[in-house]
Amino acid sequence: MTLDNTWFSEIDPAAGTAFSLKLGEKLVEEQTPFQKIEIYQTETFGKLMVIDGCTMVSTRDNFLYHEMMSHPALFTHPDPKRVVIIGGGDCGTLREVLKHQDIEYALQVEIDERVTRLSEEHFPELCESNDDPRAELYFGDGIEWMARAEPGSVDVVIVDSTDPVGPAEGLFNQAFYESVFRALGEQGILVQQSESPMLHLPILAAMHGAMRAAGFVDTGMINFPQPLYPSGWWSGTLAFKDASLQPRYADVDVEKLNTQYYNADVHRGALAIPNFVRQGLSSEVVDN
Amino acid sequence: MTLDNTWFSEIDPAAGTAFSLKLGEKLVEEQTPFQKIEIYQTETFGKLMVIDGCTMVSTRDNFLYHEMMSHPALFTHPDPKRVVIIGGGDCGTLREVLKHQDIEYALQVEIDERVTRLSEEHFPELCESNDDPRAELYFGDGIEWMARAEPGSVDVVIVDSTDPVGPAEGLFNQAFYESVFRALGEQGILVQQSESPMLHLPILAAMHGAMRAAGFVDTGMINFPQPLYPSGWWSGTLAFKDASLQPRYADVDVEKLNTQYYNADVHRGALAIPNFVRQGLSSEVVDN
Repeated sequence: MTLDNTWFSEIDPAAGTAFSLKLGEKLVEEQTPFQKIEIYQTETFGKLMVIDGCTMVSTRDNFLYHEMMSHPALFTHPDPKRVVIIGGGDCGTLREVLKHQDIEYALQVEIDERVTRLSEEHFPELCESNDDPRAELYFGDGIEWMARAEPGSVDVVIVDSTDPVGPAEGLFNQAFYESVFRALGEQGILVQQSESPMLHLPILAAMHGAMRAAGFVDTGMINFPQPLYPSGWWSGTLAFKDASLQPRYADVDVEKLNTQYYNADVHRGALAIPNFVRQGLSSEVVDN
Repeated sequence: MTLDNTWFSEIDPAAGTAFSLKLGEKLVEEQTPFQKIEIYQTETFGKLMVIDGCTMVSTRDNFLYHEMMSHPALFTHPDPKRVVIIGGGDCGTLREVLKHQDIEYALQVEIDERVTRLSEEHFPELCESNDDPRAELYFGDGIEWMARAEPGSVDVVIVDSTDPVGPAEGLFNQAFYESVFRALGEQGILVQQSESPMLHLPILAAMHGAMRAAGFVDTGMINFPQPLYPSGWWSGTLAFKDASLQPRYADVDVEKLNTQYYNADVHRGALAIPNFVRQGLSSEVVDN
């Protein structure tokens, strides 16, 4: 019943849960100025990147997260051209964004260049679009970048960050959302990873509230499986400057996207809000 | 990084994964003629029942599984009156079934009476409909029961069993499905728990194939989060004698059902089949 050190275990102390993967060898252990990065070979999930003890990305199941953090928002904005990813250093979200041929420019603002350099080495499939002429990799602080962004210059902002502790904490508050609001165009959309609907509902509720307080007229939730993260059930929170936007399901071409999880039915399904989640978010923030 | 014996860990050796819950005290440890049952107090998931080392049910998250194993099938059959549950000894599925006022008779066929008696003691909320005059608890072998069932006498069969090893193994093959097919009426529906779409796709594919070989004209899948089970992502496989049935979304009244997860949007979303799952099940079995 005990799990020894041939397993990597991510323990969520507040949730009283842990998820573990059977390990092969440790490939990387590196302390950067920002955080500790480890990469392991696992027995069944390919490679695993861990930051400050938290599972970040695995070869096998990252497609769920990366597809769901990008395509639902991009297929809801009526004509997305310019995308900014905050965080996302493994480059998997960038890859999904650039599958959209109408995107003209996608900027990844990652605070820790080592995340990206190690991903290029150990998760090359996630980095296959890094040399796309439409892609730019900038290594710096996402909060500062957003505060200085040209107003109205971005169509979709994707916050693909670590949990709301440590370096990412400042990405989960009203001041940051106000910066995002200014940076977005009139039909702009923000989507941010927002933890587990099962384990972290108060975090989601606070995000909806802060996004609305920052000026967004509507918020929403997508939810999807993610075995690597606590509870195996994860969410993204969406914020809209234009409450009239509807998903463009008819434009979803799975053959072109080459997605493993995402399709129009999955998109529609991901927007279904379970009853206890609706209650937890309070009626005002999910009244859509 | 290691998890000691203050945690309960379910290890899925083939999948190379484990899920753990932080424990309080052990309340029950009992070897029945069929299996070993343990019940623990956990720190954050209420009580936890474990059978032969596998997590079965927790106070906190069982609603996901029980609601999804019952309501989608019952809201797809046009007029369900008679339901048989194979397994389901914790009585949570029975409770959900009996929320449907039009149900006239619901029989639970559980092989191990101790599962039910311990559930009555430790999960009383799941057993609150056991005394409903429409409910019958029968303790015996589900395979034998189904082989002797009156042809055409059942509207919906719900197979709420343990994994396809040990006592439940015989519930996952063509011979059993042929018995179910005979027992069901013309518009009859079978729904069976079918493991993780992420980790156990070959099991799902084999189930679809065996159900079709047994005579069912159509099969389908529902998928939903289930933190307690491997990968946190679980499925039910549906088999139909009438391929024309459509979900009766308009009949779903969440207030009456008092469900925590299930609603009409969630039902629709649960039927969305991700691309890799569709490929894994082969085009012939999900062509609907």
